Formats: sequence, structure tokens, C-alpha cells
Amino acid sequence: MLSYNDSEKATELAERANDLMEEVVLPKEREMAGGMAVSDGTLEELREAARDYGVYAPQIDEEYGGMGYDFRDVLPTFEEAGRSLLGAAAMRVDAPDEGNMHLLELHGSELQKEEYLEPLVAGDIVSGFSMTEPMQGGGSDPKMLKTTAEKDGDEWVINGHKWWTTKGIQADILLVFARTDQEAHPYEGCSVFIVPADADGVEIERNIPHLGSETHGIGHAEIKYNNVRVPEEHLLGQEGMGFAHVQERLGPARLTHCMRYSGMAERALDIATAYMSEREAFGSKLAEKQVPRHEVAEHRTRLAAARALIRQAADSISAGNEARLEVSMAKVFTANVTQEAVDTSLQFCGGNGIAKDLPIADFYESVRQFRLVDGADEVHKRVISREAFSDVKSEELEPVTRFDG
Amino acid sequence: MLSYNDSEKATELAERANDLMEEVVLPKEREMAGGMAVSDGTLEELREAARDYGVYAPQIDEEYGGMGYDFRDVLPTFEEAGRSLLGAAAMRVDAPDEGNMHLLELHGSELQKEEYLEPLVAGDIVSGFSMTEPMQGGGSDPKMLKTTAEKDGDEWVINGHKWWTTKGIQADILLVFARTDQEAHPYEGCSVFIVPADADGVEIERNIPHLGSETHGIGHAEIKYNNVRVPEEHLLGQEGMGFAHVQERLGPARLTHCMRYSGMAERALDIATAYMSEREAFGSKLAEKQVPRHEVAEHRTRLAAARALIRQAADSISAGNEARLEVSMAKVFTANVTQEAVDTSLQFCGGNGIAKDLPIADFYESVRQFRLVDGADEVHKRVISREAFSDVKSEELEPVTRFDG
Amino acid sequence: MLSYNDSEKATELAERANDLMEEVVLPKEREMAGGMAVSDGTLEELREAARDYGVYAPQIDEEYGGMGYDFRDVLPTFEEAGRSLLGAAAMRVDAPDEGNMHLLELHGSELQKEEYLEPLVAGDIVSGFSMTEPMQGGGSDPKMLKTTAEKDGDEWVINGHKWWTTKGIQADILLVFARTDQEAHPYEGCSVFIVPADADGVEIERNIPHLGSETHGIGHAEIKYNNVRVPEEHLLGQEGMGFAHVQERLGPARLTHCMRYSGMAERALDIATAYMSEREAFGSKLAEKQVPRHEVAEHRTRLAAARALIRQAADSISAGNEARLEVSMAKVFTANVTQEAVDTSLQFCGGNGIAKDLPIADFYESVRQFRLVDGADEVHKRVISREAFSDVKSEELEPVTRFDG
Amino acid sequence: MLSYNDSEKATELAERANDLMEEVVLPKEREMAGGMAVSDGTLEELREAARDYGVYAPQIDEEYGGMGYDFRDVLPTFEEAGRSLLGAAAMRVDAPDEGNMHLLELHGSELQKEEYLEPLVAGDIVSGFSMTEPMQGGGSDPKMLKTTAEKDGDEWVINGHKWWTTKGIQADILLVFARTDQEAHPYEGCSVFIVPADADGVEIERNIPHLGSETHGIGHAEIKYNNVRVPEEHLLGQEGMGFAHVQERLGPARLTHCMRYSGMAERALDIATAYMSEREAFGSKLAEKQVPRHEVAEHRTRLAAARALIRQAADSISAGNEARLEVSMAKVFTANVTQEAVDTSLQFCGGNGIAKDLPIADFYESVRQFRLVDGADEVHKRVISREAFSDVKSEELEPVTRFDG
Repeated sequence: MLSYNDSEKATELAERANDLMEEVVLPKEREMAGGMAVSDGTLEELREAARDYGVYAPQIDEEYGGMGYDFRDVLPTFEEAGRSLLGAAAMRVDAPDEGNMHLLELHGSELQKEEYLEPLVAGDIVSGFSMTEPMQGGGSDPKMLKTTAEKDGDEWVINGHKWWTTKGIQADILLVFARTDQEAHPYEGCSVFIVPADADGVEIERNIPHLGSETHGIGHAEIKYNNVRVPEEHLLGQEGMGFAHVQERLGPARLTHCMRYSGMAERALDIATAYMSEREAFGSKLAEKQVPRHEVAEHRTRLAAARALIRQAADSISAGNEARLEVSMAKVFTANVTQEAVDTSLQFCGGNGIAKDLPIADFYESVRQFRLVDGADEVHKRVISREAFSDVKSEELEPVTRFDG
Repeated sequence: MLSYNDSEKATELAERANDLMEEVVLPKEREMAGGMAVSDGTLEELREAARDYGVYAPQIDEEYGGMGYDFRDVLPTFEEAGRSLLGAAAMRVDAPDEGNMHLLELHGSELQKEEYLEPLVAGDIVSGFSMTEPMQGGGSDPKMLKTTAEKDGDEWVINGHKWWTTKGIQADILLVFARTDQEAHPYEGCSVFIVPADADGVEIERNIPHLGSETHGIGHAEIKYNNVRVPEEHLLGQEGMGFAHVQERLGPARLTHCMRYSGMAERALDIATAYMSEREAFGSKLAEKQVPRHEVAEHRTRLAAARALIRQAADSISAGNEARLEVSMAKVFTANVTQEAVDTSLQFCGGNGIAKDLPIADFYESVRQFRLVDGADEVHKRVISREAFSDVKSEELEPVTRFDG
Repeated sequence: MLSYNDSEKATELAERANDLMEEVVLPKEREMAGGMAVSDGTLEELREAARDYGVYAPQIDEEYGGMGYDFRDVLPTFEEAGRSLLGAAAMRVDAPDEGNMHLLELHGSELQKEEYLEPLVAGDIVSGFSMTEPMQGGGSDPKMLKTTAEKDGDEWVINGHKWWTTKGIQADILLVFARTDQEAHPYEGCSVFIVPADADGVEIERNIPHLGSETHGIGHAEIKYNNVRVPEEHLLGQEGMGFAHVQERLGPARLTHCMRYSGMAERALDIATAYMSEREAFGSKLAEKQVPRHEVAEHRTRLAAARALIRQAADSISAGNEARLEVSMAKVFTANVTQEAVDTSLQFCGGNGIAKDLPIADFYESVRQFRLVDGADEVHKRVISREAFSDVKSEELEPVTRFDG
Repeated sequence: MLSYNDSEKATELAERANDLMEEVVLPKEREMAGGMAVSDGTLEELREAARDYGVYAPQIDEEYGGMGYDFRDVLPTFEEAGRSLLGAAAMRVDAPDEGNMHLLELHGSELQKEEYLEPLVAGDIVSGFSMTEPMQGGGSDPKMLKTTAEKDGDEWVINGHKWWTTKGIQADILLVFARTDQEAHPYEGCSVFIVPADADGVEIERNIPHLGSETHGIGHAEIKYNNVRVPEEHLLGQEGMGFAHVQERLGPARLTHCMRYSGMAERALDIATAYMSEREAFGSKLAEKQVPRHEVAEHRTRLAAARALIRQAADSISAGNEARLEVSMAKVFTANVTQEAVDTSLQFCGGNGIAKDLPIADFYESVRQFRLVDGADEVHKRVISREAFSDVKSEELEPVTRFDG
């Protein structure tokens, strides 16, 4: 067992989470094997268990129904949650609600917290996060955002076209990101609004058909906002500060996402390891063959490196830094390492890697998006390279400039 | 445009196939964008067009309803077919029927050809290929096959448990692979049977839930055979020669599979290239950025290498060789190269790579199986390494054995 | 044994080359094991043997002392030559003389052929190729060439600073590339000159210390040309056509270079295979362990792909095409594949991979330059991507543009 | 700038080391550019400077001439030292003396410390470490060790054949590893001896010619020990405990080696970054092109992951654990990551990457051994996979065993 520099408090929480996973969530997942949809009462049942095990909404203040752990201490628990596609929802650390709750906790008014945060934490309502737009497809360039919100009396009027609004179809409320000042740079002219899903003009076009099946209830909607009116109290946080607010949501959210996928990748390797210890071919157990053994070693090592990087970034955030470089490094590294670990696990399970009796095929479909969401690989490399080229040591070239002269 | 050493006849056929794809199949596929199921009349419509374009069942003798092209000349057309998930079915070169028809043409009795081959070529019936068994999960070790067929009077009685029987659910007939001589090495003691899907004792358990959706009508069934009786005329080819027969089916089939996936990968790059030429981020078109440009160059190059390897293996087969080494090299190389090309294409299409409006997400789900079917990577590397270590030049070590002495 | 589509004539020549390598060159190389310098008479001895075996200067017309094979037929022989660092010099297909002889054969005047080509073929003199300049370090941008040649009466006056002039120190003549028309684009304003190494103003600064030892007599010089005067008969080919001439030299030369390095990589794998068949660790021969077996299979496969790509490009050149795309693909693919094969071979020989008793460490030092010379990876990817993005199929985007509208 | 969880004390030491490198060592290295040998007084000069800067032999107790830092606190300083091939020798943390001094400090008798440790720390004598044997080429299998030491009266008589004895030629003393109990498992039957290099029977065969030039004074010798007699006081540590003693030397030594190579890789990227910021091709600075920018980002990220892993392993060692898994992970990951970073840096410097005016070509030659020494990749993956397969969760297979039944 590897040890990381987590606090005792963090470790204890993660151990309870591990118990929940081993004793409740994974058995439930196995029972549902073969890609069946989550039945109606399942989620409630799992959340009830999470409360019993003392790992329900650990990241939220007790005042609003959570457990009051700080970000750094709850981090290892996200990894446990990620070991099954059911885990995050059970512990109420599931996207996009987790991020939305975080935003509401940080910037919501007392009224907003009461009306939206508390029922979200309780699991009584569902929320969507409506930021990405179709024409941004090529990346995450904020200058390409077109959705607007204009003040009209004491109301805001929202117009725009969003997609990949996670849980958009089930959502009771949508957090909508829109330009409120067309003249300003988007970093200073955008705001976030709480929009009831049943408001006039909210047109949910469809759940976007996409990679991976929808067995676990998470779809991503395409939504048009046509003259949607919300009262001014529905502005979340400060007008014009949307980007800054969302950034506070995104930095840590990227790391929690990393931990969830790291947990998924570890689980995929656990399954592949168990599979190879059982099955044989050409005269010996797969687990005794050198190629899969060394491949597993390779992926365990890279995952250990990813987990060390994530924690390092989290330490820096906890110390009050923005840690943009560290977060970008952790994100791009983890996204690639987890995709590869899941891919290899699938390979070593042969036909059972593709079949959905085991969860690896689901993991394979799920993990692929991680190199695109929360900033595509290319966006993070852009951040990292900017830093790398910002501090050039020109004296290093003396031996050749001397010579060129 | 790269040129390969294809004959004029082969090139003309492929050009007609290309016309069919550009003018009929791809427009139909685009119309169906978003993952909708293939509607009832679509397949017939496409096959009608394939006949009109002169590319229907080109690999089958004219006597049985095909066009009488030899294997090497039809090869480039398979690549065209692979450019859409609808292409192979349109040209009637779709698995598993294509391989089954090949087997019937080579080893079927006159009666079998009349009763099964001709309606298969015509598209009037559907066939499944029932070889793989659950406990073989760890590889392709033939010694682990357990299904048996025993002679009882003038009937064969089949018992066994198969899975990944492609099109098992729709099939009218199943080609079943079974041991007919328990004492013999499986290479000499297995046979193939034609089993009507509605025979007593054929129990289709389920379509195996697996990676990728089923939008294009191809499922893989788990089937139990319980005392299934077929008359002795249903033995396909010679008793005890099942492996040899299937091997004849598999060698070329591996190359046609390679070509279909190579076509799929090329198409994925075509789409990504078109996408990047349209979309922009951070001030310029994606197609003007160096990273995606060089990545596309990398994948186009590897695909060119794959296509050269496939043709080299096909030339060797056409020259009468078994070409086992060449086929293994072409298969393992192509399977990896195509998976990576599709993966990168997906990445460069951003959210549209994951969404199913474009076919890339479907390709991503489909291509993953190719490193497992037709012999997993590990099985082909086993073949190649056996050859590599069979002819060791011990004199190479003189400089160090001299020194050790 | 893989078979490639080489002519009978080509195969016979390569077989004689193989005999020479196995019977003369490799034994000599082994005798010299441990990094000793090539002793004085060795080269002459090897060339004598090459004549005896019928593989001396096969690429040169008989009129000038060669054997008159065309480019495509001599290609497989280059691979044999590459199997030892001594091979190319033995067969007189060693850079840079090989390319220089090719240039002289194509564009030299009768006088130049008599005075320079024939003694070069005979091995009586040595030549250098002086094109690259220090400030071009970042790539192969021809616009950055600064060396000039100005006409002064019936003489040309050359001024400039070159480096990486292979064999510059031993050379009797230098082929110097210079701008003869400052106004023209370099593609139309450069020329090639034959400069005697002992001409006034030729200042050989040093042999550039570089990666790899100099055990096999090939150094690369840094040279300054200060008002070097040559008579006008020393212009090689047409004035202003330098680039076109050199391009004719470079296209096929890139492929011959590919073949030499492919031979080197195959040899490295031969040695590693022999080594692993002899040595053991942890209870069994290395050759029985799965990881090295599969790695060898992987590299043998990639090398087979490289060799197929090279031949495909050569076929296209032989058919009269410029084959720029094919050559770029073959070059960038082969350069990477051979570097990786040598790297892995080194790894599997352990301490003997690093020690110079076996030739692998020398190969490792040598192969690294191949991703830089003859056009760096980046330059070839630029060529390939230009082609890939030149023919964009915009209809591929219909499913998403339809949707964006 | 990334921050790691180093103590204030550690950071201050590393900062002084950084000052030494920037102000003294790197300027000296640049002055020597082009592969010239280290001149006689240079080393003494650099060590004098290291004393002035307060970073001389920081890892050794003050009693013996060092600075008394503990292992964890001196770790970041090793990274600074690794940024030039001259750095480690300057700070007296150079292999193999560093490891030898560590061993003497841990297990030497008072007499041994006085006679050998103190002059070693002072730099007055040089030591070699003689463990590896030629027939172990295939790995690090201790069972293959053949060198023996037999007790004869109050002397030990050593016989054996070693190679890769670093600094064997310059060494004043050799630490020789030999079997003292043929019956016992080597883990329990080996011992370490201090052998004066001028003892009778010590036959230094040669400096092994190997990858990389010898510009920085470090060679590896092949040595035969023929009836070499040393008095019994020359036994270092306990009889039969050789492996355990050496293991104490190797665990932390692997991490310090990791840090030195991590420093080397960072430096290579620094140089490449500076180079690309200066040079241009095809109309813009290389530093403005996306491919090298993203590649640099990729390597900076992997190096950050390596450094996090190394520290994690060091923390575990400092906490009193053997940390075998952590050390193996850190070692194999860092060895590969640093090789790749140096390789890419070389590529981006073009011809200057291969030339030895800049130190990258030297780094390239040096780093290659790191995947072989201190346990080859394969040996560490063996350790990691053993752990990975030791704790198999068989319940993970329920969904498929259920189904197989």
C-alpha cells in the first residue's frame, strides 16, 4: 500500500468511504451488472447508506446539511467515490451538483442557500450547469461565448444556445452563464444566473446522443434560452464576476474530478488483476505472464504519480495559491494516465473487457471525455507552456552564440 | 494521393465503391446522424444502390450471385466499405456473413450452397458464427473449447455454450464450431455445422450488453446449445477439419477486417480535418495550429504504413503462401494504428467528438474491439516472436562470449 | 522471412551483399570490437572484397566504375550495407560520397566526371558536402542560407560559413552550396560548386565534437570559406538550379538512408535476440520471457511496416513521380522506428548494450541523428500535413453545421 | 515555479546549491564547451567554491568532514547537482564515492572511517564499487554472483571477475562484493571488502569502452581479482550481511540518482527553451510554434510527477520504512521520463542538439544508462507487479463467474 501525505482526518473519512464502497456500493453495482438502468429506489438507498457510514456530502458545511470537511481533507474520499459509477451520487459528490453546491455555498445569498443549496445537499432537487456553447467546440475560448443576459427593470432576460448541460433534462434548476456586459472582456463581463428549469423560454432540445450509454442517469442536454426572464435575486454572486466565480468552482473541481477518475482507473486495474488471476491461456494463468504483469506495474506507477501530483496541487490551493500551473499539470497528466489504464485493463479482460457484465466497458466510455472536459489537454498544455517559456535563461546559449558570432 | 500496388481492375472496383459511398452511403449516414437506429427499408435501399453501382458482393463467384473478383482485387474495396458503419452491409461484405459466405463457397456441398449461400449473398437470410466460448476469455487458446458434437445415427447432437456470436439474435442459420473427436488435438478434432436458428435446443440467452450502442443492428449473442440435433448433411466441409477450414476463412478475413478499420480511421481523420478547417479557438482556425497538423500527419503516415503492410500480406496470400507472419504483423499493427487514429480524431473534434451527431464516437466504440477479435494483440505477438526467436544468429555474440571465456 | 516486392535482379544483388556482410564485414567488425579505430588498410581490404563479391558501387554506371543497377534494384542492398557501420564504406555506398557521386553522375560535365567522379567511385579520393549553415539550426529553412558565390571574371568567389560538412576534414573536394542570385528565391537562386579542399581561403575550423565517437572515420567539419576562388568550370550543373539538383540527390538519398538505418535496426534486434537466447536471469533464459519476446515482435512489425513504406515510395519514384509525400512519410516513420528498435535492443542487452564490445552502443549514437538530418521530423510532418489539409471534405460537417444553424 | 513539500532547511541548502551552479559550475561548464576534458585543477577549484557556498558533502556527518544534513533534507540539492555533469563532483555527491561514503559512515569501523571515509570526503582519495559481474548481464539476479572471498588465517582471499566498476581505474580503494558463504542464499552469504587498488592480484583489465565519451573523468573498469589478500580488518560491516548493507546504500542512492537525473532533464529543457526562444525557422521563432511548446509542457509535467514521486518515496524512507515499492516506482518512472525529456530537448536543438557545444548530447549519452543501472526497468516492474498481484480482490469477478457457472 502506498501512503500519501494525507491528514489523519482525511484518511479516516476515506476509510469510511472505502467501507461504504466495499460493503454497499460495489455489491449493488455487481447486482446491476450487464448495463441495466439504475432502478428508482437505488439512489435513495445508497444515499441512506452513505449517511449511515458518515460520508454523505462531506465537502459541504454542516449548516447546509454536509459534514464540514475542508477541500484538502475530502480529496482522498473523491477517489473512493470514483471506483464505481454509482459512488459519487451515493456520497453526494456527483457532478455537476457538487460544483453547483460549491458555488452556491461560496457566493449564494442567504435566500439562495435556503431555497437551492439545502435541498440540493439533501438530494431533493437536481441542478444543471449551463456554460458551454456549440460553437466553442474547438476549445475553451471564452471570447466565443454568445449567450446574453440583459437587465430589464428588475428582471434579467436571457438568450442563448447551450449544450453539454449535464443533467439538463432532470434538472430542477439550471445555473446559466451569460454575458451581462458586451463591451467588457468576458473575464469581466459575465455573470451566473439561477434559472428554474420550468421557466418560460427554457427549451430543452434533446439529450445529446454521445459516447457511452446512459445507464447511470447522467445525460447532457442541448438547451435554448429564448427570452427567459428571472428576477434579479437570481443573479448568483456579483454581476460581471461570473468568470472569477466559476474559476473558484473549477480549480478544485478539476482536482476532485482527477481523484474520481483516478479511483475509476485503480478499480479497472483491480478488476483486470482479479480476472487475470482466475483465467488462463496457453498453459498458465494470465496473472503469471510477464507482459500483463509489467503492464499493470507500469499503470500502477503512473497512477501513483498522478495521485502525488494531484495532492501537490491541492496542497498548494490549500496554502492559498491559485495553483494554476499545478492544477493544469495534474489535470492533463491524470486524464491521460487514467484513459490509458482503463484501456489496458479492458484489453487484459478480453471479451469480458468489452462486455458490460464487468464495469470496465462503462469506464472506458466514461473516461474518454476527461481529456476534453474541465479544459481539454490542449488548453492545459497551453497554460503550462506559457509558464515554461516565460523564464528563459538566455545565458544557456553562450556556447553557441559565442560560436555563431 | 498515395498510390499502392493495386491492379487496374482492383482500382476500378474501389472507385465505384468510392462513388457509392460518397453519393449514397455517406449522405444516408449523415441523414441518420445522432445515433438513430437504421430504419427498416434502409438496408435494402443501400443494397439496391450497391448493385446499381456495380459493387455488390464482389468477393463471391458470379454463380452464387456475386461478381467474381479474387481476394487481392477486392481488398481495396473493403477499405471503402469501412468508411461508414453502413458501408459493409450495403456492399454485402459485412461480418460475419462475409466470412460465412466465404466458408460456404470454399467447402459447402452443392446443396448447402443452393440452400444457404445463395440466399445469404442475396441478402435474404442472415447468418451467425458461433465459435468463441466464455471460458476462453483469456485469449484464443483452442485447447479450451468445450462444445461437442456427437454422431447419433445420421444426426449430430451438439452441446455447448457460446458467446460473441455476432448477429446471433437475427440469424436464420448459425455456423457452430464443435469438437467431434475428444481424443484428438483440437486442430484435428473439430468440425463446423450449419444449425438452423430455430432448431430445438438452440437457446439464445441474450444479446451481450457491450461497449458501444447497437445503432447499426449488429449484436453479439450468448447462446446455449442443448442437445441440438442436425442431420449429417449439415456438416460443413470435412469432419475433423474445422480448424483448417476456419483458418482459411480467418487469414484473409483478418486482412479484410484490417481494410475496413483502415477505412474507418481514414474517415475519422477526414472528419477531424474538416472540423478543424471550420472551427477556431484562441484567434485562429484549429487547422492552422501546429499540434493538430502534425498529429494528423503522424496518423496519416502510420495508416499508410498499415495499408502497405496489409497489401504485402495479401500479395503473399495471393502467391499461395499461408503468410501467417505477414498476416499477424498486419493485424496487430493495423488494430493499434486505427484505434489511435480514431482516438486522436475524437480529441480534435472536442465536444463534437463525443457527441453522436458525427460518426466518430461510434467509430471509437467500434474500433476498440479490433485489438481483441481476430486474435488479440497478445496472440499475434506470440506468433511474430516465435518466428523472431526461431533463427538466432549466435555468432553475433562472439565479441562478448570471447570476453566472458 | 518476409518477402517484399523486389525484382529478381534486386534480390540477387542483395544476396551477394548479404554474403559479403556475413562472411567478411561482420567478422571484421567483431574483430575490431570494443571501439577500436579502423586501421589503415581495413577499408581497402573491405572494398576489395566487395568487388570480389560483386557489390561494389552498384548504383553507379559501369562507365564510371560501378555496376549500373537502377535505383529501385539497388535499394535492398543498402539495407544489407546498413547492418554494420563498416558496410556502406565497403560497398562504396557511404555518405556523403554516395550522394555526391549521384550528383556528379547526373549533372557533371564530362571533364568533371573524369576528374572527380571516377576517382571517387574508385575510392581514390574523398568528398564532402557543404550545405548546412550554423544559423539554420532551427530547421531546414532555405531562406536562411547566407553563403554567397559571386562571379568575378571567369571565376566564382565564395564566402560563407558552413558546418556539419561530413568528411570535411578528410575531403579532397568539397561540394559547396551557395547563393548566386541574392534577389531570387533560394529555390531559384542557388548553385553548387566543386571546391578543392586545398583552395586558398578554405578554413577548416574543426571537426564538430558531437554525439557518438569517431571510431569509424566519419566526422563533420565546421568550415569557413573566405574569398575562395574557383574557375567557372567548377560550377556543377546549371547556375541557379542548385536546389533542384540537390533535391534530385535528396529524394532517393533519403530512401537509401532509410534502408541503411533499417538494416542497422534489424541488426540490433538480431544481436539482442542472440543475447537473450544465451543469457538468463531469475531462473530462465531472457529469450523465454514474455516481455522481451513481445517487444521484439513489436519492433520487427514496425520495421516491416517501414520497409514496406520505403519500397512504396521507391516504386513511386521509379514510376517517374517526385513522390514527395511518400518520401516524407517513409523518412519520418523509419527514423522514429529505427531509433526505438535500437533503444529497445540496447535495453535488452543490459550492461552489454552500453558497452562497446557489441555494436549496439555505436548504433545508438549513430541512429539519433537520423531524426534530424535529411529533414528533421518536424519538416516532414509539415509536408505531410500540408497535403492532409489541402483536400478538406466540408460535407463531412453537415451533421453539425446543420445543427449549429 | 512549482513548490514541493521540502523543509525550510532543505530549501535553503538547495538555494545555495543553485547559486553555486549558476555562478560557478555552469559558467565553468560553458567555458569547457565542445567536449574538452576537465583540466587538472578544475575539480579542486569547483570543490573549493562548493565549500565557500556551503554545499560541500552536505550528506555526510560533520565529524567526517560533511555538513550533517539528513537524507530527506539533502535530496533537493542532488537535483541542483545534476544540472551539470560537473555538479555532483563539485559538491562531493558524485557516484560511486557518495554511496561508498554512505556505506562507510553506516558500517565502517572507527579505523576504516579514519583511514578511508575522511580522506574520501575531503576528496583526497577516490573509490570504486565493484559488485556487478559480466555474466549477470541479463539483469540483477544475485544468484549469479560468482566472486568469492575465503578466510585464510587472518586474511581474506578474493577471487572473481567484475566489470562496470565505476572509477575503477582512478580508484585508490575498491569496495568489493563477494560470496563468503557458498552454501547460503546470496542474501545471507555475501560480504563487502575494502581492497586497496594496488594490492597484489588486482588486475584492471581496461576501462570498458561504452556509450558516451569520457570527457568528465568517469570510466567503468573491468577488473579481475586473482587471489587478492586483504587483512580481516578490511571486512566492511558484518560478515554475511553484504546484501543488507548494500541495500541500505541502494535504496536512498536510487532516489539521489533520480534527483540528479531529474536535474539533468530539467536543465536539458532549460537549454532547449532558450534555444527555441532565439532561433527561428519558416518565419517565426521556434518558441512560438505550438508543437515544441506543447512538448515542453508535456515533459515539464512528467518531470513534476517524477519529482513528486521521488519525494513521496523519500518521505516514506525518512519515516522509517523500507519503501521498496515506492522506490521502485520512483526509479522506473524517473528513468524513463528523464530519458524522454533529454531526447526531446536534443531534437528541438537540431544540429546543436547533436553537437557538443551545448551539453545536451552529453546528457543524452549519460541518461541512457539510468534505465539499466540501480536495477533495470524490468527488475523494478517485477517488484511492483508482485505487489500489485499480491492482493487480488476476487469478488470483483462475481458478475462473470456467476455467469460462467
